[in-house]
Amino acid sequence: MTKRDFLRSIGAVAGVGAAYHTMSAMGLLGPVLAQAAAPELPLGSGYGKRVVILGAGISGMTAAYELSKAGYHCTILEATGRAGGRNLTVRGGDVIREADNRQWVDFDQEDHLYANMGPARIPYHHRVILGYCKEFGVELEVFTNDNRGALFHNAEAFGGKPVTGRQVMTDLRGYVAELLAKAVNRNALDEDLTGDDKERVLSMLTSFGGLDPDYLYAGSNRSGYQGEQVHAGIAPGDVNDPLDFSELLKSDFWQYKLHFSQFLNQNPTLFQPVGGMDAIAKAFRARVGHLIQFQSVVEEIRKTPEGVRIVYVNQRRNLQEAIEADCAICTIPAPVLKDIPNDFAPETQAAIESIEFEHAVKIGFQARRRFWEDDHAIYGGISWTDQDITQIWYPSNGYHRSKGVIMGAYIWDDKPGQGLRFTGMTPPERLRTAMAEGEQIHPGYTDEIESGVSRAWLNVPFQKGGWPRNYAAPPELLKPDGAIYFAGDQATALPGWQEGAALAAHAAVEAIHARVTAS
Amino acid sequence: MTKRDFLRSIGAVAGVGAAYHTMSAMGLLGPVLAQAAAPELPLGSGYGKRVVILGAGISGMTAAYELSKAGYHCTILEATGRAGGRNLTVRGGDVIREADNRQWVDFDQEDHLYANMGPARIPYHHRVILGYCKEFGVELEVFTNDNRGALFHNAEAFGGKPVTGRQVMTDLRGYVAELLAKAVNRNALDEDLTGDDKERVLSMLTSFGGLDPDYLYAGSNRSGYQGEQVHAGIAPGDVNDPLDFSELLKSDFWQYKLHFSQFLNQNPTLFQPVGGMDAIAKAFRARVGHLIQFQSVVEEIRKTPEGVRIVYVNQRRNLQEAIEADCAICTIPAPVLKDIPNDFAPETQAAIESIEFEHAVKIGFQARRRFWEDDHAIYGGISWTDQDITQIWYPSNGYHRSKGVIMGAYIWDDKPGQGLRFTGMTPPERLRTAMAEGEQIHPGYTDEIESGVSRAWLNVPFQKGGWPRNYAAPPELLKPDGAIYFAGDQATALPGWQEGAALAAHAAVEAIHARVTAS
Ligand SMILES: Cc1cc2nc3c(=O)[nH]c(=O)nc-3n(C[C@H](O)[C@H](O)[C@H](O)COP(=O)(O)OP(=O)(O)OC[C@H]3O[C@@H](n4cnc5c(N)ncnc54)[C@H](O)[C@@H]3O)c2cc1C
Ligand SMILES: Cc1cc2nc3c(=O)[nH]c(=O)nc-3n(C[C@H](O)[C@H](O)[C@H](O)COP(=O)(O)OP(=O)(O)OC[C@H]3O[C@@H](n4cnc5c(N)ncnc54)[C@H](O)[C@@H]3O)c2cc1C
Repeated sequence: MTKRDFLRSIGAVAGVGAAYHTMSAMGLLGPVLAQAAAPELPLGSGYGKRVVILGAGISGMTAAYELSKAGYHCTILEATGRAGGRNLTVRGGDVIREADNRQWVDFDQEDHLYANMGPARIPYHHRVILGYCKEFGVELEVFTNDNRGALFHNAEAFGGKPVTGRQVMTDLRGYVAELLAKAVNRNALDEDLTGDDKERVLSMLTSFGGLDPDYLYAGSNRSGYQGEQVHAGIAPGDVNDPLDFSELLKSDFWQYKLHFSQFLNQNPTLFQPVGGMDAIAKAFRARVGHLIQFQSVVEEIRKTPEGVRIVYVNQRRNLQEAIEADCAICTIPAPVLKDIPNDFAPETQAAIESIEFEHAVKIGFQARRRFWEDDHAIYGGISWTDQDITQIWYPSNGYHRSKGVIMGAYIWDDKPGQGLRFTGMTPPERLRTAMAEGEQIHPGYTDEIESGVSRAWLNVPFQKGGWPRNYAAPPELLKPDGAIYFAGDQATALPGWQEGAALAAHAAVEAIHARVTAS
Repeated sequence: MTKRDFLRSIGAVAGVGAAYHTMSAMGLLGPVLAQAAAPELPLGSGYGKRVVILGAGISGMTAAYELSKAGYHCTILEATGRAGGRNLTVRGGDVIREADNRQWVDFDQEDHLYANMGPARIPYHHRVILGYCKEFGVELEVFTNDNRGALFHNAEAFGGKPVTGRQVMTDLRGYVAELLAKAVNRNALDEDLTGDDKERVLSMLTSFGGLDPDYLYAGSNRSGYQGEQVHAGIAPGDVNDPLDFSELLKSDFWQYKLHFSQFLNQNPTLFQPVGGMDAIAKAFRARVGHLIQFQSVVEEIRKTPEGVRIVYVNQRRNLQEAIEADCAICTIPAPVLKDIPNDFAPETQAAIESIEFEHAVKIGFQARRRFWEDDHAIYGGISWTDQDITQIWYPSNGYHRSKGVIMGAYIWDDKPGQGLRFTGMTPPERLRTAMAEGEQIHPGYTDEIESGVSRAWLNVPFQKGGWPRNYAAPPELLKPDGAIYFAGDQATALPGWQEGAALAAHAAVEAIHARVTAS
């Protein structure tokens, strides 16, 4: 019996699932990824146990959802009147607040006219978040990061004229391939490449870079054709002249912008929930909303002999109240948490203080017409600029409809101070500044814009920043301090992603379950 | 008054449109693309003129739509009972025919369970087709070509084990960057790079390839992390080991598969009509269906002193009939057209005979479960293999639903004979062969598949092939022969794309208008 026959026989007898399982165990399936692995706690295993969860963001709600399935008695204390935390989608008629300003969102009320002011994209390998989307029936559509028709703009390069992603990427590959082919042909890499590989590298480079038979890069139709039509038409037409290599190197495009979609969390396929990212927050709220005490601002986090005691202000009644529980899961963002009186060990407090958050700012604009589609054939994706706005995002929804919401800025302190500069402005100043910068990329831009809204996360009470700048959580937050467990994206090596927030929740849930089972 | 002020003043006085126009003329807008430029013939300019159009594919229907708007009297002769030609979407319950077989499509009847057996994707710069989609209200969704979670498989490489696009692309960039950095540091490129550029190239390569501070490629987290989770989790985890460079070079991945999405017509953003590509054919049919005489097989194409005479068999009545007109637009695919008796000049006939069509084959499979999503986090995109099936396409729709239709093969004679081999099989043989090859990429594949359908275009009457293999039309087909104009994608330098078919129609319409106006 061959291995395959054996497997088929299992398939026949025990069903496809069993065969799969066996094959997976035998390592035959190639890259198999864990299914959205929610902790599967035994039903009822949490009965009689109380957990208080601080914060009703994605992390807090994930923890409450999983724990209450197992019978734990959960309470979520949430400072604001809304579930979702950084997961925030705004629509016409909404009012959003920062520390010292209030903005009224003046978008038209249509399904496709919304702005995700926090998370906006979900990469294909974020199995936990996508798993919840599947489980909760949150409909998904593709989010486009990498659109070769979008633009690169650098005031210092190409006379400040934007160039298309298509051109920049094609030409850079071409020049890299040409240079390497030259070096290979000059025998400069003979110590690195054996005879056969040398030949293969040359063929590979021809294809990689679009080189001519002499291994030179003389432009490529990959970058498009000259004139009003990007592609060949009735006759082939003339290919774009390649961009000057030296000028390309002088631009900042290649510093990361050009490789952006190579990054693991930015490469396709990415998704967005249809109608706005808050579809996820709403789906969680529909399941754990009854466990949330809104407008309950945590003011003290205390250890007790039996567990924890959380003091909070109930803002509706304007009363200080307290809740005791066997343990707590704390998802309050570090910049807020560090100032809340607590009984943490000094290492814990120091770890919390060590976490710095990005000064992230987003600005959404409603445009009266989809000029990016009509005039430039830009459908979704990102234009990059060296100005402070950093990016313009075109909507990955509502294609060909009459209006659209673009992100007129998405800043994260790529150049120090960018985020702070915008944070310090009044909302109207932010809009004006972003429009002026946008004009450099799309002349006439200002005239296309009907209204706008901004969010400077540093200036948002109970958030005080975008996401942790460090790329791994301090180890102190990966274990409980007494009966207090830490979660939120800050308690992971995947900060700035809802997946991290959910993973941290799962880790806390599993640790609590282990504690309860052991006791 | 500055240029900008001037423009603003126009904006204020004449409206945004006028300002845009002026700016466009002044070259200030950067890359502005022609709007879907349908010929704008004067209303009524075609009254009293008769045009007979041969073939009701996208090209023929486009011509009829534009000409009849201007008052021309159009008749379309279509051999089959369906409008759309190669634009063909199949669904449960459909019966499709080839020369010597009939297939009953046994898919479940749900919106997302269809297969585009002809065209399936529309790149963002196909302004004419997208323009019609906008005009006709054909809803679009993103089609994914480049999914870094999809697989590359080569029987000779990596022990025949599929590797992810993410790994292959990251590692190839890494190795290319490392080699080039070495050559630069060995001064092998000093004649090509001036001092400053040399430094900049090194920095650029670090970012391009993910090199370490010594300009070496030691793997990169861009390729993902080891274990069941692709990305970092609670702790960072271990980055994938880089694939062996020599092995990578021995695979056929880089021959074009790895660069596929660099190609102009394959790079993002791409679209598909929601519910199937035939939404476009149906939208045209809704507008010009009354002009189509179905089951009318053209058998002679004749010149007359006044114009043209087309002899055809009306298959419903089983009668030979004839139609006279001032001119004709012929969109019949060259492999069919070459055998139709005609009065063409010898050069025209030779040109038609010179066009060879690809032996394109597609195979659609309905899977009982979306194992690519569930087990592999593959959402849309293409897995490539060196086997004859060439590709597996995962659906860019119906994400997370219970079943899905994948393309189990899409062959175009990349290796000579591949298409012919599948064309020569019976439909059940095709399915079995494609399943067996698919097993190499997804063990257990066969057990997941519920039903399938194939289309070998060479074997389809009135088509006899996929699309022209040559990359520019013979010049003889770009001008009329007498009063006979040629259209279809074969009369362009954009064969194999509906955009070409529509552009050719526009060109024919404009030429006929010029002829009519001149006479
Ligand atoms: C601009 C921006 C863009 C982003 N882009 C993406 C993206 O594209 N994709 C993605 O997946 N992720 C993205 N993220 C990251 C994502 O938003 C976070 O990782 C995730 O939402 C964090 O969830 P959380 O539950 O850990 O924290 P939060 O959402 O911050 O929840 C914390 C909760 O605690 C509450 N709270 C604070 N203080 C108190 C208190 N004293 N008492 C009671 N409650 C309190 C807050 O009100 C809040 O509801 C982005 C974030 C930002 C800011
Ligand atoms: C497998 C495959 C994949 C493709 N992928 C894409 C893609 O992703 N995107 C894209 O844009 N394009 C794609 N194309 C190309 C696209 O399908 C064509 O460019 C386009 O549909 C051609 O339209 P047409 O009107 O020129 O020709 P056709 O669609 O071939 O129309 C010709 C018509 O003439 C009729 N006819 C033939 N002989 C006679 C006769 N004797 N008398 C009367 N009528 C006759 C035929 O029945 C047919 O209806 C693909 C094609 C194939 C085969």
